[in-house]
Amino acid sequence: MTESSDPPPLVLIHRPPSLTFMDETISREFRTLITDTSSESLPSFLSRHASSARAFVVVGRLPVTEELLSHLPSLQLLVCTSVGIDHIDLAACKRRCLVITNAGNAFSDDVADCAVGLLLSVLRRIPAADRYVRSGNWAKFGDFQLGSKVSGKRVGIVGLGSIGSFVAKRLESFDCIISYNSRSRKQSSPYRYYPDILSLAADNDVLVLCCSLTDETHHIVNREVMESLGKDGVIVNVGRGGLIDEKEMVKCLVEGVIGGAGLDVFENEPAVPEELFGLDNVVLSPHLAVATAGSLDNVAEIALANLKAFFSNRPLLSPVQVD
Amino acid sequence: MTESSDPPPLVLIHRPPSLTFMDETISREFRTLITDTSSESLPSFLSRHASSARAFVVVGRLPVTEELLSHLPSLQLLVCTSVGIDHIDLAACKRRCLVITNAGNAFSDDVADCAVGLLLSVLRRIPAADRYVRSGNWAKFGDFQLGSKVSGKRVGIVGLGSIGSFVAKRLESFDCIISYNSRSRKQSSPYRYYPDILSLAADNDVLVLCCSLTDETHHIVNREVMESLGKDGVIVNVGRGGLIDEKEMVKCLVEGVIGGAGLDVFENEPAVPEELFGLDNVVLSPHLAVATAGSLDNVAEIALANLKAFFSNRPLLSPVQVD
Repeated sequence: MTESSDPPPLVLIHRPPSLTFMDETISREFRTLITDTSSESLPSFLSRHASSARAFVVVGRLPVTEELLSHLPSLQLLVCTSVGIDHIDLAACKRRCLVITNAGNAFSDDVADCAVGLLLSVLRRIPAADRYVRSGNWAKFGDFQLGSKVSGKRVGIVGLGSIGSFVAKRLESFDCIISYNSRSRKQSSPYRYYPDILSLAADNDVLVLCCSLTDETHHIVNREVMESLGKDGVIVNVGRGGLIDEKEMVKCLVEGVIGGAGLDVFENEPAVPEELFGLDNVVLSPHLAVATAGSLDNVAEIALANLKAFFSNRPLLSPVQVD
Repeated sequence: MTESSDPPPLVLIHRPPSLTFMDETISREFRTLITDTSSESLPSFLSRHASSARAFVVVGRLPVTEELLSHLPSLQLLVCTSVGIDHIDLAACKRRCLVITNAGNAFSDDVADCAVGLLLSVLRRIPAADRYVRSGNWAKFGDFQLGSKVSGKRVGIVGLGSIGSFVAKRLESFDCIISYNSRSRKQSSPYRYYPDILSLAADNDVLVLCCSLTDETHHIVNREVMESLGKDGVIVNVGRGGLIDEKEMVKCLVEGVIGGAGLDVFENEPAVPEELFGLDNVVLSPHLAVATAGSLDNVAEIALANLKAFFSNRPLLSPVQVD
């Protein structure tokens, strides 16, 4: 499938032991090498086996550092299976002239579904109600506290890419009122644009974070933004934990500065601040927004399509621009 | 506001002690009498105080029986604040020529929001994931099991009234494929119609029950329907517990005949089968679909509007036809 009759390029795959969904898809078209760190360190494995690997498929959030890349002298292409690529040292990749691809839109509908699921779960207190019934308290103590109405809520979306747009489309059907903040106004969007997140927070009942984590967006939700959102305000985060100043968020939730939060991501995963475990107004999810059986098939196909395109000199499906 | 200069009619209100939301609204236009059963039984209270009551506002699911009605000789109008009226002895009301109103569409958006919230919660395992994080298991044991994709799911709605239509509208925005079963085909609906629930179950991934409980719909979801829905199938019930053969449903969930359930209603509320408490594939809610702060305001306004219309001989807003 590649240059004339040469053997297909060697593709290195790094993945958690249980996530085998990619192996067969890639091996259909390429020689593959799956990292095995059961008896040696990853750098050692790479040095001994991967010197001829021309592409590296990273499943999960392995930190790809300059040191790691130094063990892959033939590398040309880095295929990430996530949308966010904050685990990749982009400067190091640029120095090495590596081409990078990400998951593109493979996860957008699943992440948007999860965002809306978290929003409904917080406002209507679904996991808290579920705990109430399971503990037998309904029969013992009677009615549970009322939830908050979803229809008519003003929802501010931070980052109106494919995920943010899908969230907006879904919430419109609940008669929510949508506005957004992003680096620049989207000419094609019918929603109200806010150039800064502080005024977005002030004018909305819910903030949904769908943007990528960069130097500019790190701790974009700080105490001031939460105070602006207010005591009935809710934050949903399906982006990255680092978008929120997590320590301040915990304080704001405990003190009632904001009303609740639905969180799929955290600053130091899988560590989650224990103060959150006792709060009924938060819903916690273990970075699962992207993960359904269906989305893994999608992402394997996109990874394969990017690999095939790269080695046939055709345009990539989901290239990442490195500034 | 009524017949010439007569005093306004006496309206009897029965409600749980904490649900005071109706009192002020109704007293704006009528004389009101709130039942007080702190020191005597309800029949005794009614006999002593309510013989001149011409309307009876029932907040909650008080069984309105022939015996109860016998203590209200002046009664003309029964105002229910729920949509379903299976707690009312309709035959007895008919014999007494009582006019009945219900909550109309006051709750439709809240119930639809809850149905979609339960659907997302079951498919994406949101409460189970929340338990996993809160228990500290994420940090200890790593990734949680994958959820199931929502987009593209085939959803069969049982009962395409205002609630069912709102559920359909919401799920269309998730790219779900909608079909429905109801007593008769809705000419205005774009969705595929199934005249029987068995074939609806066979052709769909999810059933959402939004119909009212009648003799015809009692146990409409029996073992055969669940077998037809299949091992990955999910049931969401925001109608009434009696729509499902609950004993069989518990067996089907335990045995894996169906894949999961999101339940806001149960056959013997507030009793819930304890076998469900240990299952991760069910989400349990204490009959809360209708209850948000916003919907209570709605229902108070609708109750008042029905009372005013009745005593001015104008058309009722949400009359219930008693066959």
